[in-house]
Amino acid sequence: MKEIAIGIDIGGTNTAIGIVDKEGHIMIKDRIDTPKHGDVDRYINDLSNAIESLMVGVKQLNEQIELIGIGLGAPNGNYYTGNVEYAPNLSFKGVIRFVELLKKRFPEIDNISLTNDANAAAIGEMIYGGAKGMKNFVMFTLGTGIGSGIVVNGDIVYGHDGFAGECGHTVIVPDGRDCGCGSAGHLEAYCSASGIKRTAFELLAFYNATNSPLADIPYNKLTSKDIYDAAMEGDEISKEVFEITGDYLGRAIADTIHHTSPEAFFLFGGPVAAGELLLNPVRKSMEEHLLPIFKNKIELKVSSLKEGDAAILGASALAWQESKKKSK
Amino acid sequence: MKEIAIGIDIGGTNTAIGIVDKEGHIMIKDRIDTPKHGDVDRYINDLSNAIESLMVGVKQLNEQIELIGIGLGAPNGNYYTGNVEYAPNLSFKGVIRFVELLKKRFPEIDNISLTNDANAAAIGEMIYGGAKGMKNFVMFTLGTGIGSGIVVNGDIVYGHDGFAGECGHTVIVPDGRDCGCGSAGHLEAYCSASGIKRTAFELLAFYNATNSPLADIPYNKLTSKDIYDAAMEGDEISKEVFEITGDYLGRAIADTIHHTSPEAFFLFGGPVAAGELLLNPVRKSMEEHLLPIFKNKIELKVSSLKEGDAAILGASALAWQESKKKSK
Repeated sequence: MKEIAIGIDIGGTNTAIGIVDKEGHIMIKDRIDTPKHGDVDRYINDLSNAIESLMVGVKQLNEQIELIGIGLGAPNGNYYTGNVEYAPNLSFKGVIRFVELLKKRFPEIDNISLTNDANAAAIGEMIYGGAKGMKNFVMFTLGTGIGSGIVVNGDIVYGHDGFAGECGHTVIVPDGRDCGCGSAGHLEAYCSASGIKRTAFELLAFYNATNSPLADIPYNKLTSKDIYDAAMEGDEISKEVFEITGDYLGRAIADTIHHTSPEAFFLFGGPVAAGELLLNPVRKSMEEHLLPIFKNKIELKVSSLKEGDAAILGASALAWQESKKKSK
Repeated sequence: MKEIAIGIDIGGTNTAIGIVDKEGHIMIKDRIDTPKHGDVDRYINDLSNAIESLMVGVKQLNEQIELIGIGLGAPNGNYYTGNVEYAPNLSFKGVIRFVELLKKRFPEIDNISLTNDANAAAIGEMIYGGAKGMKNFVMFTLGTGIGSGIVVNGDIVYGHDGFAGECGHTVIVPDGRDCGCGSAGHLEAYCSASGIKRTAFELLAFYNATNSPLADIPYNKLTSKDIYDAAMEGDEISKEVFEITGDYLGRAIADTIHHTSPEAFFLFGGPVAAGELLLNPVRKSMEEHLLPIFKNKIELKVSSLKEGDAAILGASALAWQESKKKSK
């Protein structure tokens, strides 16, 4: 009997669905549109049909399978309630009871649960990736925003109401840049993919750097990949962008380490593709800002999950994690 | 049979020892000197003798007692190892294996454990105080420094190596004031009792406030109590000190809430005696800096443990907490 889990990642435009084995191999996968106009019933129906088709497909690959559960990752997903609540990037209005709705359609599946995408990524790292066997670690996901998953004693910290791990919204520069959340100076406004772009444009303006290749790309087109490419070709502005980003990020990481004393710290997401160009200044700043008792002890690592697969893997890992808890 | 626990608080000059019942009543207590010259063997001997005398004493009060364990609170106390490691305010050098040494003297007592004083205070609040029944809360202790105890799922977060909860050393003002740890801009440098004093002297200098009653007290004599008294008599400088302190502290509290999403936040220590003079600006700043999903949900409370008893209570609470874990 081969045990499998279903992982579902609900994104702003796409929903990815995959069937994953215990080793983290995606055996079969599919995608459907996430609705643009908030039609929940139709979406749950499409999603359920896609799940059923994948189950038929996986049985053709391997007859002896046992489904251990379904895990969902979604922005503003709440583990305790199973709901997605007021997610700004999804078209659904208010509170959507995803777990309840799926349980109605699949009453035979006991283990269906949901969390936010950053927590799912951290669980994916713990079940399949570089955090295997670790009991205390943290993951920051750098994308449009910054998410975080904090693991203590082998489980995600959900907190009192399920919303723990909003480290992207800690203050890094008092009264600093506008943050998407409406507040100011948050880590997310400096070190997310768009935060990095903002730093680049600040530097262009500060140095009046007409010779930088970045100066020929409009604000709405520049990506962290462009900045990386320019840095690799020697552009001083772009190199400084990574220095500054690393400095802020290392400070935030040190603050989080002072909270939960993890064994390792993982980074995930597009900007991490810059590798040591980003990691070097992060590590330097992190060590500089740590108390002596933490210095040179905490590994800074890049997620070992492939970015394209990580969302499905993370969501499916939640199902494995819950199945482990239930069997205790 | 009346169950009792022993609580021991190892301070810089005094060690307080008490026998405490399940309701948090200190039945009998004593104190011995903490050595000035680091003589560990003699200290453990004195401490053990004091414990034995108290046990004789408590048996005279109540014959039917059952000792469930010993808890110790000490600066830099490590829960995992049972050691006190390089504590700057204690005269002992290097690593002192307190739990091991006490177990040698009391081999019949299975449950002996140790943690740092801030964690002990948080456990005390959970076992006897205002956090009874709470599974997720945080306590900041404001004294010479700032300690913190973070409770997640009903237990203290110790982290990978036992040193979690160093929230006093998160950056609140980048490149700000010198902190005692050797770094800069930490919460402790602004909102501990001495941080509050530093703010007062900065304001005296800034406004050249020769009319403030604080202007007649030397730096080495001024206490947070003096600042409170002056504020109550209308001194504008002193009122501003609490506004500024509350602003910083509220921001740090919001950052910590973004990490672990607690149900309530407790403050403990001398400066908290200022009551609403401090709490009002803390609450205002905390709410201002919280993400919408956390606003108006998290209670800010003052510890309900009497300051004079809290150290013994916290240490003894660790013994109850461990006894609960063992019986699971």
